[in-house]
Amino acid sequence: MGKPKVAVIGAGISGLTTSKMLDDYGLEWTTFESSDRLGGNWAFGNPNGHSSAYRSLHIDTSKHQLSFKDFPMPDDYPDFPHHTQIKAYLDSYAEAFDLHRNIEPENGVVHAERLPASEGGGWRLETQRTGTRHADLLVVANGHHWDPRFADKPGEFTGTTMHSHSYIDPRTPYDLSGKRILIIGIGNSAADIAVELSSKALQNEVVLSTRSGAWIVPKYFAGKPADKYYKTSPHIPYAWQRRVLHWMQPLSAGRPEDYGLPTPNHRFFEAHPTQSVELPLRLGSGDLRAKGDIDRFDGSTVHFSDGTSEDFDVVVHATGYNITFPFFDPEFISAPDNHIRLYKRIFKPGIDDLAFVGFAQAVPTLFPFVECQTRCVAAWARGDYKLPPIPEMERVIDEDQQKYTGHMVQRPRHTQQLDYFLYEHEMRTRELPAGLAR
Amino acid sequence: MGKPKVAVIGAGISGLTTSKMLDDYGLEWTTFESSDRLGGNWAFGNPNGHSSAYRSLHIDTSKHQLSFKDFPMPDDYPDFPHHTQIKAYLDSYAEAFDLHRNIEPENGVVHAERLPASEGGGWRLETQRTGTRHADLLVVANGHHWDPRFADKPGEFTGTTMHSHSYIDPRTPYDLSGKRILIIGIGNSAADIAVELSSKALQNEVVLSTRSGAWIVPKYFAGKPADKYYKTSPHIPYAWQRRVLHWMQPLSAGRPEDYGLPTPNHRFFEAHPTQSVELPLRLGSGDLRAKGDIDRFDGSTVHFSDGTSEDFDVVVHATGYNITFPFFDPEFISAPDNHIRLYKRIFKPGIDDLAFVGFAQAVPTLFPFVECQTRCVAAWARGDYKLPPIPEMERVIDEDQQKYTGHMVQRPRHTQQLDYFLYEHEMRTRELPAGLAR
Repeated sequence: MGKPKVAVIGAGISGLTTSKMLDDYGLEWTTFESSDRLGGNWAFGNPNGHSSAYRSLHIDTSKHQLSFKDFPMPDDYPDFPHHTQIKAYLDSYAEAFDLHRNIEPENGVVHAERLPASEGGGWRLETQRTGTRHADLLVVANGHHWDPRFADKPGEFTGTTMHSHSYIDPRTPYDLSGKRILIIGIGNSAADIAVELSSKALQNEVVLSTRSGAWIVPKYFAGKPADKYYKTSPHIPYAWQRRVLHWMQPLSAGRPEDYGLPTPNHRFFEAHPTQSVELPLRLGSGDLRAKGDIDRFDGSTVHFSDGTSEDFDVVVHATGYNITFPFFDPEFISAPDNHIRLYKRIFKPGIDDLAFVGFAQAVPTLFPFVECQTRCVAAWARGDYKLPPIPEMERVIDEDQQKYTGHMVQRPRHTQQLDYFLYEHEMRTRELPAGLAR
Repeated sequence: MGKPKVAVIGAGISGLTTSKMLDDYGLEWTTFESSDRLGGNWAFGNPNGHSSAYRSLHIDTSKHQLSFKDFPMPDDYPDFPHHTQIKAYLDSYAEAFDLHRNIEPENGVVHAERLPASEGGGWRLETQRTGTRHADLLVVANGHHWDPRFADKPGEFTGTTMHSHSYIDPRTPYDLSGKRILIIGIGNSAADIAVELSSKALQNEVVLSTRSGAWIVPKYFAGKPADKYYKTSPHIPYAWQRRVLHWMQPLSAGRPEDYGLPTPNHRFFEAHPTQSVELPLRLGSGDLRAKGDIDRFDGSTVHFSDGTSEDFDVVVHATGYNITFPFFDPEFISAPDNHIRLYKRIFKPGIDDLAFVGFAQAVPTLFPFVECQTRCVAAWARGDYKLPPIPEMERVIDEDQQKYTGHMVQRPRHTQQLDYFLYEHEMRTRELPAGLAR
């Protein structure tokens, strides 16, 4: 086979980085984007509905950790850029590397079918605007923060139910002032929205319900972005490093019980910690109350598993997202409960003309992680990097899963957890050289 | 003289505590309150205009430090109670000690005149409702957080000018959304209002101007209210203890420059530090920008002393308050630039039938400080405690001023600074016994 034609689904962070890297490697590529703009999740108010950004959203990674290695963020950016700045950064990235020429806006892939070898192999793609297209290789980069996952509880809530995905600000899409509001979840969105809505200025009564509790870490520590201190070493056992973090934790934010949160059902760093400077303050000021898990809904009443019940006007599910591939037949590829077995989070064993990019919750930083993945994908697309045999891939998937998430609570939100520093070191020093040598 | 009649001006924290202590000492007292309710500054929306509370205000002292020693706050109160809870606490205090029976609402003292000995001495009080009243002793407890002090700068600003005193919430008294807002000051009110108005949800452009800069301290440290760690010892030189705080400071919140604030023109604890968890975050997120001093106003333009200029719609002066005694003839007693020489912050040398309560910025806590002052005032009213000769009082005033504020920047807001633990220890172990023995 000559130079392969590569199709990329999505022009968010992952798709853009993939496009740029394929271009660097001199490959022929086309990126299909369903929206009229690039940026995906970071295109606030994205008309394709795939942005979960609220008006006040700032990225939770400091720019020092976040920047693409080959495209630093502007010096005048603040430590924790606003979503508008992330979008502008992605725009300037696309501009700088002339990516627009091969990105097709409003031309998302509606259906992707892998053709049997008898039909010449490759992929048949049904697109929004341009009918059927073909590609030799397919890269899926459609993101995993756009398909809302709701808390699944018995009974029916008759007030307003919404997901953090559609939350914009206290006036949009609903007037959230003077209301009794229950927020379900304790991830970063739950914390941000709870803080925003519990401002006494809005005169809401806000309760946060968390099933598993959470450890709270600050965005700043001793005046520096807290993630500046986070650097895992590949040369010290990961479990030891987690233990040190566990010891250090009380210094940074104390125990969740200190400010009325339920005791977490896990130790520090056994689940993704929640980054919030303001949540402990709001809880400690009584503006916000925390409760445990929900038992059931009944009209406007919510019954909690501690036996108490309260009435609410609004329930906000800040309960995360499903990994969804609307363009694949579900029986072909899907990710039930966000489980999908991928070699190095990129390759599905048995399907050697398909790659996934960006399907991980890389800690502490996403952009360099995606950069690292796309380097492997580009080498694979050019035929330089070769995959190991399927049984070997399956074995490594289990091993990696154990390494990155074995210590964590088994929950849909944690299937994707990954330590960036360990991953990058492993890919650069072992996996990439090994794949090039295969 | 038999049992003296004591008049108290004001039924806020200081007046209530005075009333309670006078009652404990079996004295005859009347408290004159200009409003229809008690609580003064903590009576949100106080019809007498003397509350500076905004809707979201929480006290900046944790309840553990704040409680009256003889009347603990309810167990279910949060660490940092809301103004409504402080008000309810004061109400229940008045209730528990049956203070209402001698408090006269809507009957403030309009004019207080000290009568010469030839007319029998004592005080002639003109009141709102009940005409002329008389008292043997007068206690001034009218507070020092109600008469707005504005930044005095050349030129005229033609947009909206307001003081933090009249700020209620982002919609009251003005719609502060989609505006360019300059906040002058970096005290606790300035920080709170800057944080509230700079929420991206309101779509404001917010700039904070500070002349002197400030050190920021968090409300929480390692999961506990930060002021739980604050305990000055009377047995170690104060300067040494300040030095230890100075060393510890970077651990808690870093240097102000870390998040774009001007370098303070003073060392840590040489001025009242600003308590804010959120200010560094907002600055570090670029939602809020900090600038130095203002040079002059010109129409809608504000010229800063760094040579830059910017246009604003609204200027909020969060520049503190004047100490004002509207019931005294100014030539009799006034406090220009908040300077008033009081022995132990209570007695004006030469006027032995007058006491002041609550005129200090006691760190870290106000209520027990006022309690401590009123114990002395009650002993003085009953004739148990006697003042030293005037020259001795003058000498001690200078000595105390040097002790409590000698290390601080000389500014109206710092004339009242005082370390509660040192003050309380000195009053209890030295001044009160000495006064009883005189």
